[in-house]
Amino acid sequence: MKLDMASVKFNSDGLMPAIAQDEISGEVLMLAWMNAESLAETIKTGQVTYWSRSRQELWRKGETSGNVQILKDMRIDCDRDCLLMLVKQTGPACHTNRQSCFYTAIRDGDEIELMQPE
Amino acid sequence: MKLDMASVKFNSDGLMPAIAQDEISGEVLMLAWMNAESLAETIKTGQVTYWSRSRQELWRKGETSGNVQILKDMRIDCDRDCLLMLVKQTGPACHTNRQSCFYTAIRDGDEIELMQPE
Repeated sequence: MKLDMASVKFNSDGLMPAIAQDEISGEVLMLAWMNAESLAETIKTGQVTYWSRSRQELWRKGETSGNVQILKDMRIDCDRDCLLMLVKQTGPACHTNRQSCFYTAIRDGDEIELMQPE
Repeated sequence: MKLDMASVKFNSDGLMPAIAQDEISGEVLMLAWMNAESLAETIKTGQVTYWSRSRQELWRKGETSGNVQILKDMRIDCDRDCLLMLVKQTGPACHTNRQSCFYTAIRDGDEIELMQPE
């Protein structure tokens, strides 16, 4: 079935959450946001491009750091308002130089740091 | 370090995205939303509770279907505005009776259904 871009639901800011998961390890690396332009660019180039909410511009992941994400597969959820991307991650995904942005566990009311910067 | 709930960042609607991942298979099951109350209830009960944006009420996952999510570990991301939960999922996670909400792949401009209802 042909993808109907009109059926993809962006929020009132024109954005949708996009989860990046390592295609090999299955580790969830990060969640960031996409607008229609960044989604189209990600699909066209095969390289993950988000929308930076803080800078209000296209965010070609890894453009300055070199830590690019190559899109291996893309999924959309049942509500059509969230994306899951299986990616090949070069270097650490997190801007803190950790493999994943989810390096802090919340356990019994405490925070536990699970990963060190690479 | 003690978790400082004041440092957790909800959006302007008082919500943050929460990703549920199967603790064993690593499969990403769904993304839904939490407010402070649902987060506190999830931590307190060990059973995942979201905030239903459509119904505007606490959504105790599996309360009617029986398809509960038992919290095994919780992670918060570097920006402190997104949660990742490792869960033990009873039955299918998706309301369509599929294992995961991300059952539709987008490949070469087409939609491919990857899972059938259970």
